[in-house]
Amino acid sequence: MSTLQSFDARTGLALGAALPAPTAAQIDASVEAAAQAFPAWAASSGTQRATLLRGLAEALEADREGLVALADQESGLGSGRLNGELDRTTFQLRRFADLAEQGAAFAFTDDPAVAGAPPAGHPAMVRQRVPLGPVAMFSASNFPFAFSVLGGDTASALAAGCSVVVKAHNGHLLLSNRIFQLIQDVLRSQQLPAGLIGLVQGAGNEVGRQLIRHPAIAAGAFTGSTRGGAALQAEANARPRPIPFYGELGSINPVVALPSVLEARGAELAATLASSITQGCGQFCTNPGLIVLVDGPATDTFLPQLAAALAAQQPHGMLTSGLRSAFDQGVEQLLAAGAQPLVHEAGGAAAPRPFLAQIDAATFIAKPALHEEVFGPSSLVVRAGSVQQVLEVLQAVGGSLTVTLWGAEQDNTDNRALVRGAMAIAGRVLFSGVPTGVAVSAGQQHGGPWPASTQPLSTSVGDAALDRFLRPVCLQDAPAWLLARQGQPV
Amino acid sequence: MSTLQSFDARTGLALGAALPAPTAAQIDASVEAAAQAFPAWAASSGTQRATLLRGLAEALEADREGLVALADQESGLGSGRLNGELDRTTFQLRRFADLAEQGAAFAFTDDPAVAGAPPAGHPAMVRQRVPLGPVAMFSASNFPFAFSVLGGDTASALAAGCSVVVKAHNGHLLLSNRIFQLIQDVLRSQQLPAGLIGLVQGAGNEVGRQLIRHPAIAAGAFTGSTRGGAALQAEANARPRPIPFYGELGSINPVVALPSVLEARGAELAATLASSITQGCGQFCTNPGLIVLVDGPATDTFLPQLAAALAAQQPHGMLTSGLRSAFDQGVEQLLAAGAQPLVHEAGGAAAPRPFLAQIDAATFIAKPALHEEVFGPSSLVVRAGSVQQVLEVLQAVGGSLTVTLWGAEQDNTDNRALVRGAMAIAGRVLFSGVPTGVAVSAGQQHGGPWPASTQPLSTSVGDAALDRFLRPVCLQDAPAWLLARQGQPV
Repeated sequence: MSTLQSFDARTGLALGAALPAPTAAQIDASVEAAAQAFPAWAASSGTQRATLLRGLAEALEADREGLVALADQESGLGSGRLNGELDRTTFQLRRFADLAEQGAAFAFTDDPAVAGAPPAGHPAMVRQRVPLGPVAMFSASNFPFAFSVLGGDTASALAAGCSVVVKAHNGHLLLSNRIFQLIQDVLRSQQLPAGLIGLVQGAGNEVGRQLIRHPAIAAGAFTGSTRGGAALQAEANARPRPIPFYGELGSINPVVALPSVLEARGAELAATLASSITQGCGQFCTNPGLIVLVDGPATDTFLPQLAAALAAQQPHGMLTSGLRSAFDQGVEQLLAAGAQPLVHEAGGAAAPRPFLAQIDAATFIAKPALHEEVFGPSSLVVRAGSVQQVLEVLQAVGGSLTVTLWGAEQDNTDNRALVRGAMAIAGRVLFSGVPTGVAVSAGQQHGGPWPASTQPLSTSVGDAALDRFLRPVCLQDAPAWLLARQGQPV
Repeated sequence: MSTLQSFDARTGLALGAALPAPTAAQIDASVEAAAQAFPAWAASSGTQRATLLRGLAEALEADREGLVALADQESGLGSGRLNGELDRTTFQLRRFADLAEQGAAFAFTDDPAVAGAPPAGHPAMVRQRVPLGPVAMFSASNFPFAFSVLGGDTASALAAGCSVVVKAHNGHLLLSNRIFQLIQDVLRSQQLPAGLIGLVQGAGNEVGRQLIRHPAIAAGAFTGSTRGGAALQAEANARPRPIPFYGELGSINPVVALPSVLEARGAELAATLASSITQGCGQFCTNPGLIVLVDGPATDTFLPQLAAALAAQQPHGMLTSGLRSAFDQGVEQLLAAGAQPLVHEAGGAAAPRPFLAQIDAATFIAKPALHEEVFGPSSLVVRAGSVQQVLEVLQAVGGSLTVTLWGAEQDNTDNRALVRGAMAIAGRVLFSGVPTGVAVSAGQQHGGPWPASTQPLSTSVGDAALDRFLRPVCLQDAPAWLLARQGQPV
C-alpha cells in the first residue's frame, strides 16, 4: 500500500507518521457517501445550512491554536498570516451562512401566464434553482484554510445545497486531516450524515482524476496551477456526461502605473509594490507579476526606487521544495526570453530572493514565454512607448484575475481606453492599492478569461460564488402546492 | 473552388445556382471585421442596440412573403408554421431590444467600502458586466428563422454588446443569404459597420472549426446535434485560449403520465401527445421522445389510444435527406436494442411515418442505445412497475431540456419525489401541455445537464439568454468619473 507523508516546510524533515494513501475503493466510497447525503441536503432549509456553516466556523475557532501551529509547520506561512487567514475562512463560512438563511439559493422569478397565442402569450412559469449535486473540490497549496477543506468553494457549495468531496492538498496533509476530524464532529453533533463532506488525499494526479471522473460527481471546483486545472478540466469534459468545472488557474495581474502617479508618489508606490510582490513569498494568485510603465523620466526615476525597495525585502521560504525549484525555472525562462535583470540575487535553499527584470513592450508582446506566471516573489517590468502600446501589452496578456490602473483619476481618452482594455481581460480592475488581498463581498469578482479561470463568467470568491452550484429550472404550469413553496426545495 | 448548392426540400432538386464556398481567407476576414466592429458596439447605448434590433425585426417583416416562400422551399416546413416562426423571431428581436433599452446589460451591484481591517473591512467595489467579444453563432437546421441568422442567439448577443459571425446552416443557404442582405441594408441605414454581423457558409465541418478556432472569437453559440456540438466544444476547449461555448444539443424530453390522469383524460392526452410527436415532422429539440408510464389498467387502455392517434398523423417531409436517413437508422437502433414496435410503417421517400415502440423500464435503464434522441416523429414508451422505477428511468436519462409530469396535482410523497427527480435532470418541468413550443419570456430555461446543453446553468431561450454573453467585472476604488457612468460602458 502506498503512503503519504507530511513535511515541515522550514526544515524539509518528515512531519508525523506516514498516512495510508486511499485506495480507489475508498475514493469511490467517499463519492457514494456524498451522493447519498445529497438529496436530503438539497432539500434542507436555509436555516439548516446556516447552522452547519456556523458550526464549522465555531469548530475552527475553538481549535485555532492547534490548527495555526500545524498549518505553520506544514506551510511556513507564519502564525500572523495564518491567524488572519483563519479569520477570513470563518468570515466566509458565516457570510455564506447568512446568504443561505436569507434564501439566496431559493430566489425565483415569477413569470405569470400571459393570455393569447404565442409568441406573446405563454403559460405560467416560475424560474428557480436547484443544487447541482455532489461537488469535487480541489484544495490550493497557498491557502491552507481559505482555499482548502473549509474554504470558499466548500462554503458556497454547502450553502447552495450541494454535498462535497474535498481532495486535500499534499502540502498540508495533517492540517487537512485535523480539520476533517472537526467537520465530522460537527456533522455528528448536528445529526447530519458523515458523507455530506468527504475528504480524499493522495499524491500524484490519479486521485484527482478518479474523483472528477466519478459518475456521481456533478461539478468540480479547483484553485491551483494552469497545468493542473487544465488537466482536470479535460477529464471533466471527457466524461461520458461532461460536468461544469470551475478552475481558478494562473494569472500575472498587470499593474499599469502612469507617469503622473509615478511623479507624484513614486517612492511610496515602489514600497507598496515591493511589499505586494513579496508578501507570502509571492505565493498569491493575485501577485503583481507584471508592471507596465510608459517610457519617460518618471519611469526612469521609479525603476531604481522599485529595485531598491524590492532588494530590501526578505521573503520567507516557499510552501514546498517543488514550488521553490519551479520559481528558479520560471526566472530562468524569463531571462532566456530576453528579460534584463534589475534585482537578481542567488537565494537561500528554502527562501528565494525577490526577482525583478525589465523588457520592452514589443519583445513582451512577441514572446509568449514572457506572459507566463512565475509563482513566487517575481515581477517583470514592461516598458511601453505609449498608452497605445500599454493597451497592446494588456491584449497580449489576454486573461488575468486583476488589472491595476494607477493614475486613471481623470476622465480622458487615454484613461477610457485603458479602462476598456483592462476590463476586456480581467475579472477585477483596481484603481488604487494592490491586487493581493481579495475581499469576500457582494461586489467581488475573482475570475477572468483564460488562463485566469475556466469559466470566466463565474467567481470563486464573494457572494456570487454561490451561483456556480445552482442550476436554473423553469416550472411551467406548476400545481398550487408546488408554487406555495416559493422557491424552497421540495 | 468548391461550391454550395441549395435544394428544394420537397423535390430534392437543385434550387438556384451554386454559390461559391467561402475561402479560409474570407472566413478570417469576416471574423476580423466582427472584431473591428466590436469595441464601438460594446460601448453603444441601450437605445442604439434597441434601434438595431427593431430595425432588423422590421426588415424581416417587410420581406415576409419572400422570406417565408424561400424558407418553405428550402425546409418544407409549410407557410403556416414559417409565418409563426417569423413572428416569434421578430418578437424575440424586439424583446431583446426592450431589455437593451431598459439597461439589462448595464445592471450593476454597488458594494460600498466598509471601514476596518479585512475580512470584514473592504474597499469600494462595483460589480458590473462587459460583453465577451465577437461571438460565433451556429444555426440550427430545424428553425430557419428563430434559431438561425437572426435568431435568439444573435439577438441576445447583439443586445449584450457583442458582434457576431453566423455560420449559416446548409439546409437554408439561400434564405440565410437573403436575410444577410437585409441585415446589411439595416446596418448601412443605421451607419453601423457591415462587420457587426457577419455570415459564413460552407459544407462539411471545417468552416465551423475554423470559425471557433479563430483567436478573435470570444464565445460560441450552437443549436444542433449532440455530435456536432460536442465536436465544436472540443475545438473551443483545444484553443490556446479556451472560450465559453454554449451548445444546445440533444434531448429526449420524457413525458411521465401517471395512471390517475390517464384514467381521467387518456383519449384527449393521446391526441395531444400524437400531435406533439409529429408536429414539424418531430424536428424539435423538445419533441417528446420518451413516454414513461406506470404498468396497470390505465396504461393498458391508453397505449392503443396513443398508437391509433399517432398512426392517424401525416407528418410532412423532413428538412434534409440526411435527417431522413438518420431517422430510419435511429428507429432501427431502437428496434435492435429490443424496443417492441407499436406503430411502425414503411414511410414515403421524404415524409417518414410516425414511429412508436415500447420497452420495459429495466431494459431501458440497462441499454444506453435506448436513451439516444431519434430526431423525427418517434417516441419510445417505457413501462415502469412503480413510481420508484419511473424515478430510475429519469435518472438513467440524466440530462434533458424538459421533463413533463402529468398527474402531479396533489402534494404527496410520490409527486414530491417525481418533481425532485424531474428537476434533477431537466431545465424545464411542465405540469400540463406538451414540451414542444418554448416561450420567449423572463421565466424560460432552455438548457439542462448534458447532453441537453454544454453549459447547463445557461439558457438559449428567454431573457436570461443575454447573460451568456456578459462577463462580470469588479471595479475596485473606481474614480468618480467611472462611477458616474452607473454601469454604462466606458
